[in-house]
Amino acid sequence: MADVGEFALIALIRERLGVTSGLIIGPGDDAAEIPAPGGSLLISSDLLVEGRHFRRDWSSAEDVGRKAAAANLSDINAMGGTATALTVSLGLPGDLGVDWVMQLADGLAAECAVVGAEIAGGDVTASDAIVIAISAVGHASRAVRRDTAAAGDAIAFAGNLGLAGAGFATLSRGFRSPRAVVDAHRVPTPPYTAGPQAAAAGATALIDVSDGLLADLGHIARGSGVVVDLDSSAFPISEWVVTVADALGSEPLRYILTGGDDYALVGSFDGDIPEGWTRIGIARHPELGEEPGVLVDGAPYEGAQGHQHFR
Amino acid sequence: MADVGEFALIALIRERLGVTSGLIIGPGDDAAEIPAPGGSLLISSDLLVEGRHFRRDWSSAEDVGRKAAAANLSDINAMGGTATALTVSLGLPGDLGVDWVMQLADGLAAECAVVGAEIAGGDVTASDAIVIAISAVGHASRAVRRDTAAAGDAIAFAGNLGLAGAGFATLSRGFRSPRAVVDAHRVPTPPYTAGPQAAAAGATALIDVSDGLLADLGHIARGSGVVVDLDSSAFPISEWVVTVADALGSEPLRYILTGGDDYALVGSFDGDIPEGWTRIGIARHPELGEEPGVLVDGAPYEGAQGHQHFR
Repeated sequence: MADVGEFALIALIRERLGVTSGLIIGPGDDAAEIPAPGGSLLISSDLLVEGRHFRRDWSSAEDVGRKAAAANLSDINAMGGTATALTVSLGLPGDLGVDWVMQLADGLAAECAVVGAEIAGGDVTASDAIVIAISAVGHASRAVRRDTAAAGDAIAFAGNLGLAGAGFATLSRGFRSPRAVVDAHRVPTPPYTAGPQAAAAGATALIDVSDGLLADLGHIARGSGVVVDLDSSAFPISEWVVTVADALGSEPLRYILTGGDDYALVGSFDGDIPEGWTRIGIARHPELGEEPGVLVDGAPYEGAQGHQHFR
Repeated sequence: MADVGEFALIALIRERLGVTSGLIIGPGDDAAEIPAPGGSLLISSDLLVEGRHFRRDWSSAEDVGRKAAAANLSDINAMGGTATALTVSLGLPGDLGVDWVMQLADGLAAECAVVGAEIAGGDVTASDAIVIAISAVGHASRAVRRDTAAAGDAIAFAGNLGLAGAGFATLSRGFRSPRAVVDAHRVPTPPYTAGPQAAAAGATALIDVSDGLLADLGHIARGSGVVVDLDSSAFPISEWVVTVADALGSEPLRYILTGGDDYALVGSFDGDIPEGWTRIGIARHPELGEEPGVLVDGAPYEGAQGHQHFR
C-alpha cells in the first residue's frame, strides 16, 4: 500500500467499487451529491491521524479541532453549498487526558458556529494514535463540480493563499513566528460564504485549496480537459509571506502556488467574477499535443508538486 | 481517558458541545436527524479499529467490509429509515497489501447492494493500525427515537439474537465451527426492511442490538423512563446457540440476552406488532423506588453487562 500511494489507491478502490449511478455527483469531487426526498444532500469525509495531519507540539487541541472542522466545512463550501452538520468520530489513546478531548470539542464547536452547523453525533473508541474522522453534510441550491470548467472561462480565487504554507515552513524550521503565518497554519479561515456566492454567480467549476493551488487547480484543469494559465502578477502577496520567504531563502510565489491548508476557493467563471474574488488567469483549450494542466505565465512551474504533509 | 471509559467520555463531550437546537434528533440516538430542504436526513458514524473491532486472523477483508457497512446501515434501519449512501475513510498501514483493501471494498459494496445504498466517497491516509471510519446517511418518513417508549407498550424484536455472540464465544475459544454462528459473527444479516416496517406500524421506540439485547434495550428503558420486563420463554432459540452453549458450558439465554453484533432490531409498540416481529415483553411504569431498566422474568439478569469487544 505504501508503494501505491494514496491517490492511486483511491483510484483503485473507486474502480473496484464500480458505477455509482444512484448518485448525482459521485466520489472524486470535494463532496458527493446524493438524491434525497425534496432535493439532494452533500456529504464529504476526512480522516486525520496525529503525526501526519497534526502535531500536538505545534497545535493546541482547540486549534486541531478548529482546523479539522474547517477542512470538512470547506469541502461543502467548495461545492457551492452550506454545511448543516458534522459527525466526529475519535480514536483516542488510553493515556490521553480528558482535557485535551474537551478542548478539541471546543475547537470543533467554535468552527461549526462560524457557519451555523451542528455536531450531530459520532463515535469514540480506543486507538494507539489520535484519529479524527469527520463527515460534513450540507446543501447547495446548485452544486458546482470540479470537472466542468470550459475554455474561455476566467479563473479566480477567494480567501488566503500562501499564509498557511508559510506557517508550515516556519514551524518546520523550528520557529514560532511570525504569528500571522503560524496562526494561519494552525487555524485556517476559509471563505465560507464564497462557495454559495460563486454558485449563485454561475461558477462553472469550483474546488478548495487544501493541497496547494497548482495541485488543486490541476484537478479542475485535468478533470475539465483544459489548460489553465495563471498570471503570476495577479496575486496579492501578503507582507508576512514575503517576510518568511526572505528569512527562509524561498520565494513568496512558491508559498502561494504550492502551500496547502489555507482552504481558499478557486473556480472558473464564464461571466462576471463575484465581488471579493480575484482574477488570476484563464482556461483555454489544450494546443495540439498539449496535456491539460496548469501553467504559470505560460510555462510549467518548477517543483509544482502539492503540499507535503508531515510524512 | 482510559480511566473515564467510552460512554462517560461521550457524555462529557456531548455536555461540552452544549445544545444542538438546530437538529431534529441530536447526538445519542442510533442516528441524528438533521433538517434539510424538503425534509430531513439521518446520519450516523462509526469508527472501527483493527484488534478492537475486528481481527484479520478471524475475518477476511471482505467479511470486515460487509460487517463494517452492516453496522452503519443498521443504524439507519434502527431509526426506521433506509440508507442511501455511505462514506468510508480508511487509515492503512504501509505494509498492508492492496489486495486486502480491494477485498474490503468488495465487502463494503456487497453489503451496500443489499439495501441499494451507494458508497459516495471517503478518504485514505496512512496509519499504524487499520482504521475504518464510516458514515451512513438515509431518510425516514417517520424517524423513531430510542427514548420514547411508554408504559403498556409491547416489546418485540426482528432479526437474529445470540448467533453472533455464540460465534464470538466460539472463535474466542479457538474453534472455527459451527459455521452458522461463526459466519453470523463475521457477517451479520441485519433485518434491513424491519426498521421502515416498524416505523410504518407506529413503533414508539426503536434501537438496534449491537452491544447485546439487555444493554441496548436498557437505552430504551432508561431513556424512556420505563421498566421493560422480558419473558425468557418468548425467545426462539437457535439449535446452533444451544450447541455452542452446551459445548462451552454456558446457557443459550446468555448469548441471546448479552451477545452483540447481530444487529437485530428491538422496539416498543402501542398497537399491533408487525409481521415477522416476535413479542418478548412489555414496558411498564417503574414502581415506587424502582429505577428504569430491563428485567428478565421479573428480576435483574445476572451478569447483564453488554457485549465485550476484543479489549
